Amino acid sequence: MQEMNEKEQQQLEIEQLLQALEDENIDEFRTLFLDIHPYERAKFYAKLPKDARMHVYHFLSPEEMAEVFENLEIEDTEYEELLSEMNPTFVADMLSQMYADDAVDVLNELDKEQVASYLTIMDDEAAGEIKQLLHYEEYTAGSIMTTEFIAIHSNQTVKSAMYILKKEAPRAETIYYVYVIDEEKRLVGVISLRDLIVSDDDTMVYEIMSDRVVSVSVSEDQEEVARKMRDYNFLAVPVIDFQNHLLGIITVDDIIDVMEEEASDDYSKLAGITDVDSADKNIFSAAKKRLPWLIILSFLGMMTASLIGRFEDTLDQIAILAVFIPLIAGMAGNTGTQALAVAVRRIAIGDDKEENKLFLIIREAGTGVITGAVCGIIIMLVVYFWKSDFFLGLLVGFSIFITLIVATLAGALVPLIMHKFKVDPAVASGPFITTINDIISILIYFGFASLFMNYLVQ
Amino acid sequence: MQEMNEKEQQQLEIEQLLQALEDENIDEFRTLFLDIHPYERAKFYAKLPKDARMHVYHFLSPEEMAEVFENLEIEDTEYEELLSEMNPTFVADMLSQMYADDAVDVLNELDKEQVASYLTIMDDEAAGEIKQLLHYEEYTAGSIMTTEFIAIHSNQTVKSAMYILKKEAPRAETIYYVYVIDEEKRLVGVISLRDLIVSDDDTMVYEIMSDRVVSVSVSEDQEEVARKMRDYNFLAVPVIDFQNHLLGIITVDDIIDVMEEEASDDYSKLAGITDVDSADKNIFSAAKKRLPWLIILSFLGMMTASLIGRFEDTLDQIAILAVFIPLIAGMAGNTGTQALAVAVRRIAIGDDKEENKLFLIIREAGTGVITGAVCGIIIMLVVYFWKSDFFLGLLVGFSIFITLIVATLAGALVPLIMHKFKVDPAVASGPFITTINDIISILIYFGFASLFMNYLVQ
Repeated sequence: MQEMNEKEQQQLEIEQLLQALEDENIDEFRTLFLDIHPYERAKFYAKLPKDARMHVYHFLSPEEMAEVFENLEIEDTEYEELLSEMNPTFVADMLSQMYADDAVDVLNELDKEQVASYLTIMDDEAAGEIKQLLHYEEYTAGSIMTTEFIAIHSNQTVKSAMYILKKEAPRAETIYYVYVIDEEKRLVGVISLRDLIVSDDDTMVYEIMSDRVVSVSVSEDQEEVARKMRDYNFLAVPVIDFQNHLLGIITVDDIIDVMEEEASDDYSKLAGITDVDSADKNIFSAAKKRLPWLIILSFLGMMTASLIGRFEDTLDQIAILAVFIPLIAGMAGNTGTQALAVAVRRIAIGDDKEENKLFLIIREAGTGVITGAVCGIIIMLVVYFWKSDFFLGLLVGFSIFITLIVATLAGALVPLIMHKFKVDPAVASGPFITTINDIISILIYFGFASLFMNYLVQ
Repeated sequence: MQEMNEKEQQQLEIEQLLQALEDENIDEFRTLFLDIHPYERAKFYAKLPKDARMHVYHFLSPEEMAEVFENLEIEDTEYEELLSEMNPTFVADMLSQMYADDAVDVLNELDKEQVASYLTIMDDEAAGEIKQLLHYEEYTAGSIMTTEFIAIHSNQTVKSAMYILKKEAPRAETIYYVYVIDEEKRLVGVISLRDLIVSDDDTMVYEIMSDRVVSVSVSEDQEEVARKMRDYNFLAVPVIDFQNHLLGIITVDDIIDVMEEEASDDYSKLAGITDVDSADKNIFSAAKKRLPWLIILSFLGMMTASLIGRFEDTLDQIAILAVFIPLIAGMAGNTGTQALAVAVRRIAIGDDKEENKLFLIIREAGTGVITGAVCGIIIMLVVYFWKSDFFLGLLVGFSIFITLIVATLAGALVPLIMHKFKVDPAVASGPFITTINDIISILIYFGFASLFMNYLVQ
């Protein structure tokens, strides 16, 4: 019931907003629009047709539009179109009102010329902050941090710290951690707002600050940053350079986005698809994301076919061999995907030091022996009783045994090797390893079949 | 360099701590231990051998151990062993000092008798809070919320609100949001600490509170809660019952854990493995997580084999047909996995209303037609030029075309149907859909081959 009412109410609000836009009733629109949560404002704006958006730009200030853009969840490619609808000065004003890290996210989607022209018309302070952040490489701590943090000195009282905090609160991205720096802007401590609030006014900052600050380096990978924030349950983490200078902070909301991105990325890779998350508007863009993979894999599949082609004579003599091809290839693919998933996760959680790699490989080999033995024996027995042919059962069962060991190892090794050679591990997707293992399994199966041909032809 | 030093320093600290434990030097141990971050304390404790842990229980108070347990990241099954090492009164004290939601997480891993006995020796207030939370079903908002929030009334001044906040800060899980309730404890508003801090002391709470509170229902799925918190960038969200009574709050750190869990769960499913994340200590537990899948899939694979067995006569006459079995089955598996991944994600993000389902199916059919046509034509041409056999090329190409359409649809439909019938969608893993699509592709391929046999035998 309650859920229904909430949704109905939201629907009503949307209709009222649309009506106000249509009537060009600016007061009505502003009252309604500014009353809803910024996330809902962004959602409303993102769904508007172009002519309605043109009204919005006239009804809202750059500062109000900044809040909309901070909460906008659209395809990266759509930013350019939206910005092109607005007056350039309006865009520059809006960008300078946004949190620097969010503004940088938007600017990263534009070409360099556009970025330069917006930065020129922007006020100098905001432009400076943004330029600083634009330097950092994508997927590093620097690229997701913001420079809008609150810093104090250790020889202040709590009272004066609270005074600074209140003054800077409107601009800071978080006020829940305050960072303590020395004269050279080096990070020396941290205090949570919680600690400040429960302390007496006259307490000195150095008495209550924690001087064991967990920080991240500006060049650290964003996934590593996410891991630290998750482990330590931080709401924000300071970002420093190699001399311990405080450069910025990363807040938990940005980290949640990183986690979402990385999880969806891992998932898409495993499925062999470019981007599983974005809602494709038409079947052509959906097909475009899948075809590259399918075409590459179809050529790998042709390799499998040509491999079997070499055993055509064997097949001509013992047609029944063909019956078990999909079973063996399928088992190889399945076990390979399992091993791949484990290896990729281990790499993702950073558990891939040299000694661990060796351990992982030995462990996968051992796991392959066990799963291979169990499945091999089961399948041997089934084939034996089904076809009343002991040698055929032995051949299929033993092939499964060897295939599962090799396929498990392949699933674990391929991502490790790719990671080692810094090849994009996206190539080591589930379908890729499945197809590789098809080839391996065919080689093993027909290899044994050719070797023991005499026992099979009856 | 910096990274190295940080790690070296941590290593040094660990050695000092171990030495202090060995020397039974309680003062030294406590000084060192309480100086490091709670997360590092938990990590240190989790790695200790049993005899060293026994010292720790004597060196630390229940309150200090509570902080360790709040940060502990171990397998669910390990809690029971750790608790059994401590004195039961110590355990009860420790649990009552923990945040209620964390205590409940621990208690959920014990059997009912143990839970009852700990609750009996615990102080009444803590036991009451915990009992209340133990009622809620797993994976709902109720099961991850905490009752330790700060609530005020709307007709208070900011000054008196700050007074309550300071007083309750030590116990509350977050002080960064303060919830406003009426006389019947119904949620009527919310204020962030940020707003309180920048307001004048005499301002009334109702003047600055937001009365449009985004909340979640106590029975809501935890994934839905995570989605809301991510969209709205909340640090905490209030949990209400159907009459709008404020029951608890969920904080962002718990939501991060939920997101991790769900992402890892989706990933494991796609790989056809019970739990991809936990570091298995030996190959037997690793094999145990993979074997159930492999055995089920080997029986499905036997079905494929028996299916091909029915076409043994066809195969006897045209052995070359066998050559393309892995190619066709592989392509069916790959496209099915892609479609499955998209469908599972759509269900996960709640984008599975009836009209969307139909849309999804039509879209997948369309995508299948495009990918099928492209791959079918490519493969037809390759086979034609390779084997100089037009009909064989046509057969393989056309089979790929039809297979890709059907396999894409199967990949999308299987999870949708399972979701509809509330079957655990874990069954719809990548390897499962791959094996199903093996069968479909063999039927299509040999079906066409039998139909057009006359053109193929030369």
